[in-house]
Amino acid sequence: MNNNKLKITFLGGVGEIGKNMTAFEYNDEIIVVDAGLTFPGDDLPGIDVVIPDFTYLVNNKDKVKAIILTHGHEDHIGAVPFLLEQIKAPIYGSRLTLALVENKMKEHPKVAYKAITVKPKNVLKIGSFAVEFIKVSHSIAGSLALCISTPVGNVIHTGDFKIDFEPIDGVMTDLQRFGELGKKGVNLLMCESTNVCRPGYSMSEKSVGRALEEIFKTHTENRIIVATFASNIHRLQQILNLAEKYGRRVAFTGRSMINITEVGMKIGEISFNKNILVDIDKIDKLDDKELLIVTTGSQGEPLSALTRMAAGEFKQIKIGENDLIVFSSSPIPGNEKSVYNVINSLFQKGAEVIYDELQEVHASGHACQEEIKMIHALTKPKFFMPIHGEYRHLRMHKQLAMTLGMEERNIIMPTLGAQIELSANSMKKIGFTTAGQRLIDGYGIGDMDSNVLRERKQLSEDGICVVVMTINNVSGEVVGDPFIITRGVVYQDEAEAFVQDTRNMIIASLKEQDLRGCEPSIIKNTIKRNVSNFIFKRTKRRPMILTIVLLD
Amino acid sequence: MNNNKLKITFLGGVGEIGKNMTAFEYNDEIIVVDAGLTFPGDDLPGIDVVIPDFTYLVNNKDKVKAIILTHGHEDHIGAVPFLLEQIKAPIYGSRLTLALVENKMKEHPKVAYKAITVKPKNVLKIGSFAVEFIKVSHSIAGSLALCISTPVGNVIHTGDFKIDFEPIDGVMTDLQRFGELGKKGVNLLMCESTNVCRPGYSMSEKSVGRALEEIFKTHTENRIIVATFASNIHRLQQILNLAEKYGRRVAFTGRSMINITEVGMKIGEISFNKNILVDIDKIDKLDDKELLIVTTGSQGEPLSALTRMAAGEFKQIKIGENDLIVFSSSPIPGNEKSVYNVINSLFQKGAEVIYDELQEVHASGHACQEEIKMIHALTKPKFFMPIHGEYRHLRMHKQLAMTLGMEERNIIMPTLGAQIELSANSMKKIGFTTAGQRLIDGYGIGDMDSNVLRERKQLSEDGICVVVMTINNVSGEVVGDPFIITRGVVYQDEAEAFVQDTRNMIIASLKEQDLRGCEPSIIKNTIKRNVSNFIFKRTKRRPMILTIVLLD
Repeated sequence: MNNNKLKITFLGGVGEIGKNMTAFEYNDEIIVVDAGLTFPGDDLPGIDVVIPDFTYLVNNKDKVKAIILTHGHEDHIGAVPFLLEQIKAPIYGSRLTLALVENKMKEHPKVAYKAITVKPKNVLKIGSFAVEFIKVSHSIAGSLALCISTPVGNVIHTGDFKIDFEPIDGVMTDLQRFGELGKKGVNLLMCESTNVCRPGYSMSEKSVGRALEEIFKTHTENRIIVATFASNIHRLQQILNLAEKYGRRVAFTGRSMINITEVGMKIGEISFNKNILVDIDKIDKLDDKELLIVTTGSQGEPLSALTRMAAGEFKQIKIGENDLIVFSSSPIPGNEKSVYNVINSLFQKGAEVIYDELQEVHASGHACQEEIKMIHALTKPKFFMPIHGEYRHLRMHKQLAMTLGMEERNIIMPTLGAQIELSANSMKKIGFTTAGQRLIDGYGIGDMDSNVLRERKQLSEDGICVVVMTINNVSGEVVGDPFIITRGVVYQDEAEAFVQDTRNMIIASLKEQDLRGCEPSIIKNTIKRNVSNFIFKRTKRRPMILTIVLLD
Repeated sequence: MNNNKLKITFLGGVGEIGKNMTAFEYNDEIIVVDAGLTFPGDDLPGIDVVIPDFTYLVNNKDKVKAIILTHGHEDHIGAVPFLLEQIKAPIYGSRLTLALVENKMKEHPKVAYKAITVKPKNVLKIGSFAVEFIKVSHSIAGSLALCISTPVGNVIHTGDFKIDFEPIDGVMTDLQRFGELGKKGVNLLMCESTNVCRPGYSMSEKSVGRALEEIFKTHTENRIIVATFASNIHRLQQILNLAEKYGRRVAFTGRSMINITEVGMKIGEISFNKNILVDIDKIDKLDDKELLIVTTGSQGEPLSALTRMAAGEFKQIKIGENDLIVFSSSPIPGNEKSVYNVINSLFQKGAEVIYDELQEVHASGHACQEEIKMIHALTKPKFFMPIHGEYRHLRMHKQLAMTLGMEERNIIMPTLGAQIELSANSMKKIGFTTAGQRLIDGYGIGDMDSNVLRERKQLSEDGICVVVMTINNVSGEVVGDPFIITRGVVYQDEAEAFVQDTRNMIIASLKEQDLRGCEPSIIKNTIKRNVSNFIFKRTKRRPMILTIVLLD
């Protein structure tokens, strides 16, 4: 059914921060922008990662012509392997983005795919679409915004961006091109909203370098350890430059740090004198003042290199009084406690620790209010949709657009699964499709509404009590004593008495209620109820009760 | 053994924020300052609250002469009922503090106790101690600092405090008295450290009132809902004043909000025209613009009134477009996600939401750097110990004291369980005593190192698989099929096949390995290992395996 309109389907990244994914559809052609994941919170115990439910794409798999990746962060590329398992379409992205995808695909060796490298200013013809890539600054190199030209006009999708007047690679967010496109006519702007609640401008990446240089200058005798996000190649470049300038050898630790620097060197996104590198196993031959260690673990991740150093469990590095640790990062919401635990442990080992609450040793990669306004002002779109944010961010972004003169009727607040239809002169919501979370748990992919998570939650809070009893098939009488095991219910010193008392209670209750000749299921439920009430009275807890009745 | 020195024992509140408790001991007399609790984090699943391990006091119970409470927050009074169960000593505190303790003791009707109300400037003679109470501002009324006079000199314990030049009750933190005591001579200062990383001064409570008034002025047509901490009586007073001034009736919701306002009214800490109150069940008779709702739930607590409103599950209040919700609070670290979830839901129901990221509608109750400096400058102590903070706060506070001219050798950083000895001319660490966490879980009190928590954690991440099998006592052969139940392991659609395959695997493995005549424990362990490996291969998970072998 060709209606010659552009249909935009939101499969992730709206009403949430994470798992970004949007489909642009014109007649029988679809291009997908980003395929990201989210790391699960405490409400999803045991889940590894969360990806978008892309049933809509699977149902329309023949239409999908391209998967376009704006940059290489996990919330933009993390679902690519799962998507490629079901959809055959080429992926497009910058060199670093594709290098990171390639790394990821190594764990999915059976999935074949085609990857095409693009550069800023490239224009890609895909059926009725022409996609132009626009250079933007962000906390990872190779980030691109998109201008998607369609028969109904130009759509600008910013991806994640900031405006940095002093970018490390010397190439700024291409404000001129945004302006030029605005002049030619932008029908729809889709702009990210992560930092829309923050007034003013984001800090320049170079100002972080200046703060770090001050630290190198004033701590000439210390061993310096810098923890940062491995994917922030420009941050790494600055840190390596400082090492060279201040005569320090560099050791990398942490798998992702080692991976990314290798990738970055290979594709030329990071460059330095390789002689300054030193293997982590050989650092004891160097003086503290000759050494810089660059590590993962800036989020207090339990198994990361830095967390192990803080716990005294990292073989090659024992933290002591001559160490200076710099967290060139800020805690991602939800990670505060873990990060501060690591900081406290490092302090306790006598080290000096500098973190973002104390000094400006980190800059966000997302545009603040004035930068967002600049993009609106340059592109002057007819229609607008805020993307990449929780509901409160999207709503704030809508208000911001209205204060800049956009009329409310020309703005749509997208929600998960929403489908929007754009023509040259109109934009409207036309309906909803399946969308939501797919939970990756071990090898399995599960549904959000599954019992498994409810069960895990109950188990984690109140534990489990298993009762096994044998009943004579003929007489209906209990054979032998009931067998009871608990886990996560009672504390050790009370355990034996607890099991004994529960067993006595069951035996007594079976004598009281004559269950001879009853259905095993009735016996089972009676026992279950009695045990549950007994335990609640005794412990105020309601563990899961499993009653197993065997017939003899 | 009378050594005529003051022994200070830290039982909580150092190296952590929460469960404050310190013992001051001179010869055979002990006074305890505060007995607080901590709310457990996600690392303690199913635990209700955490209190200090006060074994030291129990072992010295005859020495304990008084329990002195600086103010009524849970981290200062929450462990009182548990302490009084084991220690017979009178408790001392301000009127509001003791009213809150009384409320708490209602749930422990068997514990008898004696409570004595004190006021600022009172001096209490307890054996060799004389304790003077000093008025301080904080986010709860009736907060007191202490000057503990001992034969080895004066010890000042600030409790929690801030310096507010415009306090709501008109009585400032008694800076003059701190100065006077400093002039007379302070041997040791123990000063709280919560906000020591924040430069400058804390906001005045009155400035919050002004921000709220601006909101009342500009939202004359909306129904206004304010969420705040129930214990912040002065905040409530300001909100009630505004309701009266702007002609709104007030409905309270949330158990603690109703409790505390009743307590506050009874003891005269809060005063207003009772005619403005309206029962929550009668609010539908009022226009939106005539109504103010004051509610709990500012931390996104799952069962709180506001969270239920946001979920559309609060009978009397349906959130809609004419509602303005003000979070007069800030998220306590760890609660950010829950709070923002509630905010997003409220926005989605069309309401306007104002929270601390957007406007200054909350003020912290803790002193920032300049206020802390002022207390140091006024008291000019000989010795100093930072208290009430994680290690990083205590360390920063030590540095701050040193920049003010205190010598490093006169500062001790206390740790949990540390015992410090103070004489007129010296302060030193003399050792450690038992200290740590006691976990309150239902009716039980458990140990930190218990298996229960490890078991709950494993259960929550990987679930459980129970295998029951019967073995012939004589032949050693398996009787019937093994019985298998899983919880939290496999998703519904795979469950049946999973159980069937596991059963087949067990039967096959039993045939392979001839287990006839083996000990049941050997059979059990073999099955357990086989099942664990089988499940891991299939799901990449390691659920807890319970194998029960019954003899026939």
